[in-house]
Amino acid sequence: MNIEAKMVPPIITLLSDFGLKDPYVAEMKAVILSICHDAHIIDISHNIEKFNIRAGAFVLASAIPYFPDGTIHVAVVDPGVGTKRRPIIVQAKRSFCVGPDNGLLMLAAQKEGIRHVYHISNQRYMLPKVSGTFHGRDVFAPAAAHLARGTPSSDFGPEIHDYAIPEFAKPRTTKGELCGEVLHVDDFGNIITNISKGDLDKTGIIEGFRLSIKLRGKATRMKFCSAYGETPSKTPLALIGSHDFLEIAVNQGNASKTFKTKVGDTVIISPK
Amino acid sequence: MNIEAKMVPPIITLLSDFGLKDPYVAEMKAVILSICHDAHIIDISHNIEKFNIRAGAFVLASAIPYFPDGTIHVAVVDPGVGTKRRPIIVQAKRSFCVGPDNGLLMLAAQKEGIRHVYHISNQRYMLPKVSGTFHGRDVFAPAAAHLARGTPSSDFGPEIHDYAIPEFAKPRTTKGELCGEVLHVDDFGNIITNISKGDLDKTGIIEGFRLSIKLRGKATRMKFCSAYGETPSKTPLALIGSHDFLEIAVNQGNASKTFKTKVGDTVIISPK
Amino acid sequence: MNIEAKMVPPIITLLSDFGLKDPYVAEMKAVILSICHDAHIIDISHNIEKFNIRAGAFVLASAIPYFPDGTIHVAVVDPGVGTKRRPIIVQAKRSFCVGPDNGLLMLAAQKEGIRHVYHISNQRYMLPKVSGTFHGRDVFAPAAAHLARGTPSSDFGPEIHDYAIPEFAKPRTTKGELCGEVLHVDDFGNIITNISKGDLDKTGIIEGFRLSIKLRGKATRMKFCSAYGETPSKTPLALIGSHDFLEIAVNQGNASKTFKTKVGDTVIISPK
Repeated sequence: MNIEAKMVPPIITLLSDFGLKDPYVAEMKAVILSICHDAHIIDISHNIEKFNIRAGAFVLASAIPYFPDGTIHVAVVDPGVGTKRRPIIVQAKRSFCVGPDNGLLMLAAQKEGIRHVYHISNQRYMLPKVSGTFHGRDVFAPAAAHLARGTPSSDFGPEIHDYAIPEFAKPRTTKGELCGEVLHVDDFGNIITNISKGDLDKTGIIEGFRLSIKLRGKATRMKFCSAYGETPSKTPLALIGSHDFLEIAVNQGNASKTFKTKVGDTVIISPK
Repeated sequence: MNIEAKMVPPIITLLSDFGLKDPYVAEMKAVILSICHDAHIIDISHNIEKFNIRAGAFVLASAIPYFPDGTIHVAVVDPGVGTKRRPIIVQAKRSFCVGPDNGLLMLAAQKEGIRHVYHISNQRYMLPKVSGTFHGRDVFAPAAAHLARGTPSSDFGPEIHDYAIPEFAKPRTTKGELCGEVLHVDDFGNIITNISKGDLDKTGIIEGFRLSIKLRGKATRMKFCSAYGETPSKTPLALIGSHDFLEIAVNQGNASKTFKTKVGDTVIISPK
Repeated sequence: MNIEAKMVPPIITLLSDFGLKDPYVAEMKAVILSICHDAHIIDISHNIEKFNIRAGAFVLASAIPYFPDGTIHVAVVDPGVGTKRRPIIVQAKRSFCVGPDNGLLMLAAQKEGIRHVYHISNQRYMLPKVSGTFHGRDVFAPAAAHLARGTPSSDFGPEIHDYAIPEFAKPRTTKGELCGEVLHVDDFGNIITNISKGDLDKTGIIEGFRLSIKLRGKATRMKFCSAYGETPSKTPLALIGSHDFLEIAVNQGNASKTFKTKVGDTVIISPK
């Protein structure tokens, strides 16, 4: 399939670690609308942990599959802004991703299938004055708006192949135990791991079983459910969450506080 | 009046307790736009206190009267997601409300007038794979988008009459004192009570009077004003707020911190 | 140039100190869409520090230059709501600003060039019932929506000339030292001062130099860079930020926490 960004109106999404108190997000939207008047701009999140490229990559990769073909995603978690790290456009199977070449875009793009990656270097598609501190406004927003107006990705600069890829640990099985890590803690305190349904299937664990889950060295027994409400209020449980990963939750409570867990912690699962 | 959701573009609002750091809100918007490309999506709030159905019901009921006829409101404060609680569409006099059958939608819908309530059970209007944890994305968002495209409410499933209604205490008068409770504390710290202008009128209290207001057992005298700026800076006052309820505020300060008050606290008013 | 608000669709921006948990922002949007169905509403920020008119003025003035000609900006940081302070429309060279006559709009409008200021007094362009507590919804939102539909600014009320202007201190040079103040601390903790590139040029300081920067009485030497990544991680630096002011930052850190600095603090720069 050859996708072209010609939806009416074109959808442009934004993700960043900018927070919502400053004018930064609005400045990006203003630049987009100045170039592409009918763009439909949707925020994915601006509350990514500051400078945390892996956290941004995870949230972007979770959201992208639900957007229509041809959507243009702009993501900015960019500690290297103004240095030699390159601004890029990734043409994936269904979407375009625009942002820094630091791995942020690639978890999402790989999931979908990467077609081409271009180094944004054509100054014609940047703001006249490019700051050393805010490429979101000066480089990425105008690139996305020009893409939305139909400029082909290949016009923005040369194709590259040596782009950065983020590393995410894969879960492994040892002596009947499945060992993974915490990928994300959501706003409810739900603990999202890197263990997929497929990983669990291989161990023979199915819904309804009781599991032993070890977090920060301490094992807790809980039921492997299909909905939060299948255990009493304030009781821990495991389930396959909406991200399609194993999630540890407390019904109507906060699992991250209960288990004092944070991103990167080891999770060990055993059927007991 | 027979309302139909045929505005151009149709307006769909979203309210939830999801917070803004995760991809959840964006996933709902993505699903809506995939089905109804020209939907105009407006956030009411995603910072409702987690699992607090009454708080969500209050915020929804405050906002809905200002939206145009035919607006579709999706609200998700849904501790029972994935259990037997039903997903519903409420056809009210001017609006549609889509969400869980746990009372969340009903304060708003009752205020406007309930016409019909349907149990969303037709899988044709859901995502192909419905998770047990995120009906906002998999059931409510697609239902709203199909409504926006003109699908009649009755196509989504059977009409029901045994829907849940949230209970809100009514204020009462004893020995010349008016006794109510705190409904909401807003982001300014203003204390919004369940006492309406009509309730106050019955006691003969009018603007300009001084009142004694008892909160957490302690009485404070303050003026019954019509604007925050009618008392000196940092001085407490009472007024009928923008929700049309009696509100206790501190001019350029935070009444909730001053009076150490929270939702559900008793408020006793006497003219003194 | 005679600007008229006839963009298709017209852009209306919102800025306030309302926060995002309450229905207030949504009520403003609902009122706008009820009057002007195709308005494209963009949030600048709703997390301005409560009652801080200067902070709101700074954020508004930062964002406005990036929006297209004819954009209508509604800003509400309004401790005097319901008192004698006037609601106004400022017709600037490229934009309209709508809000209270307390200085909030004027830093942005002066930067662009003020053409006319009108006192909004024509009740035809307000909601039927105007509360004493929420002119954002009852006065400013309807005025913006009517402007967007093409109502001339002069229809809203009489022209005025005695509007409030916010005072911002100018930096001054004494004995080779440049003395300014902290204008804003952004969500990254970057410290934005009121010292412009022009102010620095006069002292002969150019990029690549080392500076001595005194904050809260303590001097720190740091490099004057053009990007955050030009110093090692967690190292302080100075640069001209995206606001075009001298900014003190810590690469991948939080300068405001490092230097325990807040808005209004004195900053003294000397080339050393």
